[in-house]
Amino acid sequence: MTVIVDGMGGDHAPLEILKGCAAAVEELGINVIVTGPEELLKKTMEENDIAPRNISFRHTDGIITMEDEAGCVLKAKRNSSMGLAFDLLKNGEADAMVSAGNSGAVLAGGTLLVKRIPGIKRAAFAPVLPVNDKHTMLIDSGANEVCTPEYLDQFGTMGALYMKHMGFCENPRVGLLNNGTEECKGTELHKQAHALMKENAAYEFIGNVEGRGVFDGECDVLVADGFSGNVLLKSVEGTATYIMKIMKEALTSSLFTKILAAMLKPKLRVMKKKLDYTEEGGAVLLGVCKPVVKAHGSSNAKALKNAIRQAANLAKSGAIDHITQAIKETETPKN
Amino acid sequence: MTVIVDGMGGDHAPLEILKGCAAAVEELGINVIVTGPEELLKKTMEENDIAPRNISFRHTDGIITMEDEAGCVLKAKRNSSMGLAFDLLKNGEADAMVSAGNSGAVLAGGTLLVKRIPGIKRAAFAPVLPVNDKHTMLIDSGANEVCTPEYLDQFGTMGALYMKHMGFCENPRVGLLNNGTEECKGTELHKQAHALMKENAAYEFIGNVEGRGVFDGECDVLVADGFSGNVLLKSVEGTATYIMKIMKEALTSSLFTKILAAMLKPKLRVMKKKLDYTEEGGAVLLGVCKPVVKAHGSSNAKALKNAIRQAANLAKSGAIDHITQAIKETETPKN
Repeated sequence: MTVIVDGMGGDHAPLEILKGCAAAVEELGINVIVTGPEELLKKTMEENDIAPRNISFRHTDGIITMEDEAGCVLKAKRNSSMGLAFDLLKNGEADAMVSAGNSGAVLAGGTLLVKRIPGIKRAAFAPVLPVNDKHTMLIDSGANEVCTPEYLDQFGTMGALYMKHMGFCENPRVGLLNNGTEECKGTELHKQAHALMKENAAYEFIGNVEGRGVFDGECDVLVADGFSGNVLLKSVEGTATYIMKIMKEALTSSLFTKILAAMLKPKLRVMKKKLDYTEEGGAVLLGVCKPVVKAHGSSNAKALKNAIRQAANLAKSGAIDHITQAIKETETPKN
Repeated sequence: MTVIVDGMGGDHAPLEILKGCAAAVEELGINVIVTGPEELLKKTMEENDIAPRNISFRHTDGIITMEDEAGCVLKAKRNSSMGLAFDLLKNGEADAMVSAGNSGAVLAGGTLLVKRIPGIKRAAFAPVLPVNDKHTMLIDSGANEVCTPEYLDQFGTMGALYMKHMGFCENPRVGLLNNGTEECKGTELHKQAHALMKENAAYEFIGNVEGRGVFDGECDVLVADGFSGNVLLKSVEGTATYIMKIMKEALTSSLFTKILAAMLKPKLRVMKKKLDYTEEGGAVLLGVCKPVVKAHGSSNAKALKNAIRQAANLAKSGAIDHITQAIKETETPKN
């Protein structure tokens, strides 16, 4: 198993990326190829005592920044750490790929270099959120600002097959993010998507789910248009960050509370871990032919390692083959 | 100052509603009229030792449930506790109105009985969220699933004038909820709204704000289409509830942690209060001619009292007159 990692993607590249790669190699017994300026990467490894075992490098000078246009990965910046990673994945030199870089470029590269699964209309970002010791996938968390009912229906199929074949649950329940649970709720898009999803026998559709439903464990896959899925994900992140901040303020406001907080530390750590969705990896780019995982831009070594594990597990799971087969079957009758 | 309260609206009506009314009368020195089945209301007051001082009743048997169609308040259930409250407000028998009942019916009654301010295209629900000891208004939190750029621009005008005249801030900064901060982000609706809002001299537009931006204090008014505003509000609620739940689990997992948690109680209470957005009242229905506040369906006495205070303050503030004037001025050149 070989995972290719964009060595220069993310806010903390290349140091945290390299640390994450070393941890993944150590824990998972896999090979990792890192793309980027080889001299810089090797120097960073040496200076930080990161063991180079089972990590190889593919040199390129180019870097895609967060400000770059998404399309640059296809031409102007094809020769970047991310562009090269996509080319190596495409050419079969690795089984899966991880980047913590520019989301738009990951989407463009995944869709147009690795290419979509035949019949899939749009690829979608799909993070898995930990909830009550279970998991809920959000699909799409921001790849497609504008969707059609058919995209949303396919997101349901892809999400359910991912959750099943990655071992999260046997019969994933699929919900549709909406502004109310009643069937008549939402925009025209959501009403039409609801009707399509209800008729789809490929997965168990449980109907509309509200924003708060993610945490109620109502569904295993929450299908959303990329705009509101993005609003949901960032609201959850923002709220969690805010609450942890005011909790920290409350617990460090006096010497007395500081002492109490210190004694509670193990419990608070468990709590923090429960909220940390990078424990599950990053957002998988579902709908493309090979495993591509977008790690959070602010990924530290641990988050990156988890994204590598997720990418390797996806390659092993055969979920993409199952999705390819399922889409082929739904497409056939129309021919 | 007289506030009229729908005595039968909300999950905990009539008891918590009546307790909230009594607390509001006590604290604010105002008059309250409660609508509903008079015998039941009076009996509930007596049995719970709620002082009837400055509370009067207007009898009606009808009740609008959460399952009722929104439009029933206009005809079939006009003679309900909510319908009667709207009629009394409309006829000038009270200065403001509060209901914790069916949101759709509050919107229908506000728009079609109390009526929109001339020139206002759509009324919107606008809760004020406490953030870092400041406040951010979300407008629209769910009244309009489908919006036009013009609606969003008017929400900006209304929100800014509300925040200014209710004393929250002198020069409210208005942001647009989007899936990225760049100007090119979002659906066609959001791009066009951005362009309109940028040109509007009636308020200070600071550009696009992401879901997590609510808690960054980036803006004082966050304009959203009702669909994604609803997703945001419910995600925030869901996340906060979930975190408080796992925190409680962590703090009550052993006798030792229970003792520590008991010692931290005053601090945890401050924290909980900071997160409780019913401290600011409910969601004001901005865009209608008179003050209408929709309290949360699960309102307890304190939340209801806060909603009454908010409604009374809105009546005193003159904010609705300022909105009426501002809309008149923007409309005039077109005639």
